Amino acid sequence: MSKLEDIVSLCKRRGFIFQGSEIYGGMAGTWDFGPLGVTLKKKITDEWWKYFVESRDNAYGLDAAILMNPRTWKASGHLDTFADPLVECKECKSRFRADKIADSITESVTTEEFLETHTKCPVCGKENWGPIRKFNMMFSTHVGAVLPEDTDENPELAEKGLAYLRPETAQGIFTNYKNIVDTIYPNIPFAIAQEGKAFRNEISPRDFILRDRECSQLELEYFVHPDNWETEFEKIYKDFNNFFETRMGLNLSDINHLEVAPEDRAHYSKRTVDYMFNYPNGEEELMGLAYRTDFDLQNIQRESGKSMEYRDKNTGETFVPHVIEPSLGVERIFLAVLSTAYTEDEIGGEKRIVLKLPENLAPYRFCVSPLLKNKPELVEKAKEVYSSLREKYGNVTWDDSGNIGKRYRKQDEIGTPKCIVIDFETLENNTVTIRDRDTTEQIRQNISEL
Amino acid sequence: MSKLEDIVSLCKRRGFIFQGSEIYGGMAGTWDFGPLGVTLKKKITDEWWKYFVESRDNAYGLDAAILMNPRTWKASGHLDTFADPLVECKECKSRFRADKIADSITESVTTEEFLETHTKCPVCGKENWGPIRKFNMMFSTHVGAVLPEDTDENPELAEKGLAYLRPETAQGIFTNYKNIVDTIYPNIPFAIAQEGKAFRNEISPRDFILRDRECSQLELEYFVHPDNWETEFEKIYKDFNNFFETRMGLNLSDINHLEVAPEDRAHYSKRTVDYMFNYPNGEEELMGLAYRTDFDLQNIQRESGKSMEYRDKNTGETFVPHVIEPSLGVERIFLAVLSTAYTEDEIGGEKRIVLKLPENLAPYRFCVSPLLKNKPELVEKAKEVYSSLREKYGNVTWDDSGNIGKRYRKQDEIGTPKCIVIDFETLENNTVTIRDRDTTEQIRQNISEL
Repeated sequence: MSKLEDIVSLCKRRGFIFQGSEIYGGMAGTWDFGPLGVTLKKKITDEWWKYFVESRDNAYGLDAAILMNPRTWKASGHLDTFADPLVECKECKSRFRADKIADSITESVTTEEFLETHTKCPVCGKENWGPIRKFNMMFSTHVGAVLPEDTDENPELAEKGLAYLRPETAQGIFTNYKNIVDTIYPNIPFAIAQEGKAFRNEISPRDFILRDRECSQLELEYFVHPDNWETEFEKIYKDFNNFFETRMGLNLSDINHLEVAPEDRAHYSKRTVDYMFNYPNGEEELMGLAYRTDFDLQNIQRESGKSMEYRDKNTGETFVPHVIEPSLGVERIFLAVLSTAYTEDEIGGEKRIVLKLPENLAPYRFCVSPLLKNKPELVEKAKEVYSSLREKYGNVTWDDSGNIGKRYRKQDEIGTPKCIVIDFETLENNTVTIRDRDTTEQIRQNISEL
Repeated sequence: MSKLEDIVSLCKRRGFIFQGSEIYGGMAGTWDFGPLGVTLKKKITDEWWKYFVESRDNAYGLDAAILMNPRTWKASGHLDTFADPLVECKECKSRFRADKIADSITESVTTEEFLETHTKCPVCGKENWGPIRKFNMMFSTHVGAVLPEDTDENPELAEKGLAYLRPETAQGIFTNYKNIVDTIYPNIPFAIAQEGKAFRNEISPRDFILRDRECSQLELEYFVHPDNWETEFEKIYKDFNNFFETRMGLNLSDINHLEVAPEDRAHYSKRTVDYMFNYPNGEEELMGLAYRTDFDLQNIQRESGKSMEYRDKNTGETFVPHVIEPSLGVERIFLAVLSTAYTEDEIGGEKRIVLKLPENLAPYRFCVSPLLKNKPELVEKAKEVYSSLREKYGNVTWDDSGNIGKRYRKQDEIGTPKCIVIDFETLENNTVTIRDRDTTEQIRQNISEL
């Protein structure tokens, strides 16, 4: 098995991540986070929120709706350009993303270019392709009282109420920029942050949680004076390296900061850095950090007819702020954290799997257990220790299943840093065994010093 | 203005809640939570999670996808029955929920019954109605590579990939019940909790955030032995009263515990209590607490062909657990909390608006400000106090705008319990003024005692 397959297997076995709708044969591109996964996901999100919002003077949170007025996507360009090249095999009717099945082909591939690659259908092996068509990745739906039979009688109604699931959280921030400026009166530079679901109808979801149809984004938009973008960009760049290293436990040597070349950048961006992470299956984007100029606010100003100007309280200067955007997917950090933590080693000749998660991200900080579960005096004492630690730290788990070796192996796999065992000596002198996840070393310590 | 209008106005003025997509004229039934709203919303959600999941031994979290395999909604009955009666005025083509515009009509109204009510169209005033049609409230979409033009050529494709936005989070829990039992081996009774978005295509969204098209649910499913449902139901009933009173700051006298009569309950439920809250616009459901028997798990067992049986580790007994469900909408608690906290009073002959939020829910715990903003020595000292409090408590705000009276009025409106003011005496003896939000009383205290 590849390392990615090992991680997928651990995630399922230990209740981190299950396939979406598994009981009904699944739903491609969706994943359900189980009890341990939801805890890790919450910790990642909370750390990001604490680091970039709560501990900053000039950062504000937002939680905008997923269903937005469709003019949002007209103004942002998503209706026109958020599309992948779709190609159909005329023999077996299978459909693919043209740029993903042919080598050295870009997303703006034409039918002629694709045919020149002489790609064979990955399903039936034939080479008989239809034309390349643009496939918009936004999921559409209808809002309001329109019945399916209405649209047969009256096709105009199909257009009425047409709406989309947001493909990014960023536009919720841009469309609320003015509301926030008018109610909070922030000093520039300031940031608006949003955490939430975004949806992309990927033609072929793949790579576990990396390319899914439904993901959780963590987006920040920094609004800056156009003259200061370079200084602010550098600050954010350093902040994120520090965040990844000190809060997420990633090794900076696994991150390749790719300066995107002018010809590969979005036309409005003057600088973009892709944080490429060394995932088990190869390098993939962990985060995009882009200077977007005033592209987004100008689009909204044009579409809405409302001024997006900001007035500096100190200088009186009036201008449309420029924007720097660090855009992160929770699933991408989640997998980066797991791949960094996932370790197979050998202890005393025995192979084991251990998740070396940083203490601030581990679902449980301690596991408390009685050495034997059929000795009421041990169980009672262990419950006492468990309750007091739980009251103090919250995330403490109890385990009295199987033998002690099995419990250690389970706690190693879910990344619990310390296991505390109550044995007969505890009843005599109030000391317990504390076993370290990473070194497997055991020490004895008095309960009062825990 | 009614009290509800006052609250809506405060929410907009202070950045709690904005109309969804306001810049483009709005998107009916959606709301965007601004900087203060998102903080309050997070605190409500976190308190619920801490109280019902983190502090319990037998409660597990889950975060399932919004897009689920459509068989979920066939098994649950939503495809057939999650519908409202839609009626169209033949004169002006306006559409309404029949049971909402006619008095004393139920959701299962027939065309004949509706016509007998002689209701006039609320828009044009005529009485010329089309037939009542069932309008399914689930939002539908298409998952996978299907283009709009495909479905014209090949109507079957319109069915392929048809999916729905989940109308409740509960089904994510039921479909993952087996995954969790097989990975976590919980002892019964146990609970699975999920927080997340749910979508309902309301014909006429109304009552601010109470009847919206997109809402955040907090759902718990308690899996119990069928013999014990009554005891467990009582425990949950008491737990929620305690939660609402001690964590949400609600007055139990505002909650009417409505025992739903057998003929009004869902056919499978043997007991349902609706927690009706005294909202500014009248009594509305805050929470539903329902004993659902094994209805949901039996549905899934039938549709999936997989056994939903649980085996008791101690007794060896095998059975399909029964379920008790307390189902809450975050927006409903949010408005209950705001309506309880919203107060207009008179202090020294001056009217003021104050949000008497409990300390654990207030977006900011303290506001720190220098008496005068043009005295650098005061500003410097105040910044010092601000930084140290912020490090200690996190949620502390800074305010040096306008005069001190204006700052108090603003902090009262956003519910900040204490305002700390640094003045010239502070420089002499290290004491500050602490002003209480509810009493407006001011005391002097040494900085070291804060």
